Amino acid sequence: MNAPASVGRITVIGVGLIGGSLARAVRTAGWADEIVGCGRDPSHLEEARSLSVIDRYETRIPAAVAGADVIVIAVPLGAIQEVLEQVAKGAGAAAIITDVGSAKGSVSTAARATLGAHLPYFVPGHPIAGTEKSGVSASFAELFVGHSVILTPLPETRPDAIATIDAMWACAGARVMTMDVVHHDSVLAATSHLPHALAYSLVDTLARMDDSEEIFRYAAGGFRDFTRIASSDPLMWRDICLANRDALLDSLDRFTDGLAELRRQLEARNGDGLMNLFARAKATRDRMIKRT
Amino acid sequence: MNAPASVGRITVIGVGLIGGSLARAVRTAGWADEIVGCGRDPSHLEEARSLSVIDRYETRIPAAVAGADVIVIAVPLGAIQEVLEQVAKGAGAAAIITDVGSAKGSVSTAARATLGAHLPYFVPGHPIAGTEKSGVSASFAELFVGHSVILTPLPETRPDAIATIDAMWACAGARVMTMDVVHHDSVLAATSHLPHALAYSLVDTLARMDDSEEIFRYAAGGFRDFTRIASSDPLMWRDICLANRDALLDSLDRFTDGLAELRRQLEARNGDGLMNLFARAKATRDRMIKRT
Repeated sequence: MNAPASVGRITVIGVGLIGGSLARAVRTAGWADEIVGCGRDPSHLEEARSLSVIDRYETRIPAAVAGADVIVIAVPLGAIQEVLEQVAKGAGAAAIITDVGSAKGSVSTAARATLGAHLPYFVPGHPIAGTEKSGVSASFAELFVGHSVILTPLPETRPDAIATIDAMWACAGARVMTMDVVHHDSVLAATSHLPHALAYSLVDTLARMDDSEEIFRYAAGGFRDFTRIASSDPLMWRDICLANRDALLDSLDRFTDGLAELRRQLEARNGDGLMNLFARAKATRDRMIKRT
Repeated sequence: MNAPASVGRITVIGVGLIGGSLARAVRTAGWADEIVGCGRDPSHLEEARSLSVIDRYETRIPAAVAGADVIVIAVPLGAIQEVLEQVAKGAGAAAIITDVGSAKGSVSTAARATLGAHLPYFVPGHPIAGTEKSGVSASFAELFVGHSVILTPLPETRPDAIATIDAMWACAGARVMTMDVVHHDSVLAATSHLPHALAYSLVDTLARMDDSEEIFRYAAGGFRDFTRIASSDPLMWRDICLANRDALLDSLDRFTDGLAELRRQLEARNGDGLMNLFARAKATRDRMIKRT
């Protein structure tokens, strides 16, 4: 629906792993004539320019978004409200704005508080892709190929704005879908935010034990996989946890209840109970892997 | 110390992923003249023979271990006591016996209860290697290369028996070390048994939620890595959890305390507390990865 085959200028605010990879994909697809980067640190932006991820950059947001057809906000969630305020100051009346935040309730609230007449042009989005690495040096054009991007439009969001952002992600190879904000936040709390919290918590708990050096020395491949996400950017994940606090607390409590049940079975030496739990989990995961 | 360059006959009881991989490594290294397999299911043993993992097989343990210089027990921990009883019936007086169980306290107790005069020839062992797959078809000779094997000798264990089992694992490319039984069980509870319990518990908890189908549909790579170990053999892990119950309960309780602290910080919107916890965990894991 009214989706452009390409646009004139796209501005990416926050040229890290996600913003940088999207810029690379847009360039590869020829989806924009010009890619402008924006961020606080000129040396990072200079690196992005020298890698040809962006064509040029601005450190002030209003200047960076002036004249842009599409504005992508790819900053940690804690900075979203402040960035939206600045975007509203410089964006053209018909500029389409989107973000990549992992929690959408808090972003929607911030957008309502800041965007004014721009609100119908704002399409909250979340690409479900990433690695435990961060920064523009880790970015690559194929990051989103075959991955899901969830858009959570507001009731006010214009259909043509949705169609444009849909087209942008499609050019990066992603599968685009839309979802209700509350549902998005609850699903992502369970599958992404909770596992990150558990991985961080496990590594921190072990690190604080007396024989932690020895513990990590004998850690095998399973432990390394299990804790890979504990090498993710702490600031980004602090922001995500705070932004999706309520849904994450709910997920944490469900998990804690399930773990308490496992503990009871173990304490009671209930082999059948443990066997049933483990077998159910294995069957579920094997089915999930087969499907994707 | 008195370690043979090779032995005449080795008998592997339980020709699955671990037993099969060890048999393949022993054959590749030429460390034994003959490799005898033993198990309850003749069709599995026939498969192992047709893959040249073993030279021949017996389904009765006393017959399988008769005349063996080295006897390797690679069965689920729940079957160890029964297997040790049968081994004692057929093993030669100087046959060296070892096992590959992931918990060593319960194995040592079972050995004391069953082995009699064979006890000084028993070397409890634990190769820290494996995949989430199981069965002889998943076995390969290089499984142990660069991995640790921990031996937990009893006070009675003969030094020449230790040296022989050390040589066997060295021929498979493993780094062999010795450790106190109680210490082994506590370290492994923290780095292996607890993560498996958490992964099983997480998948099971999510599977029981109303929108579980959708939850798994949007699970990203991080979730897949985090839960990979939940695809492990449930029977094997039930046995490990029961065999190492006390140390695992202790690890579970430490983890639950740590998670409760994270929950308190999240509920109080304590961004600095979360940031400190996540940053500590990331630094620890990054250091751990660099070292190995």
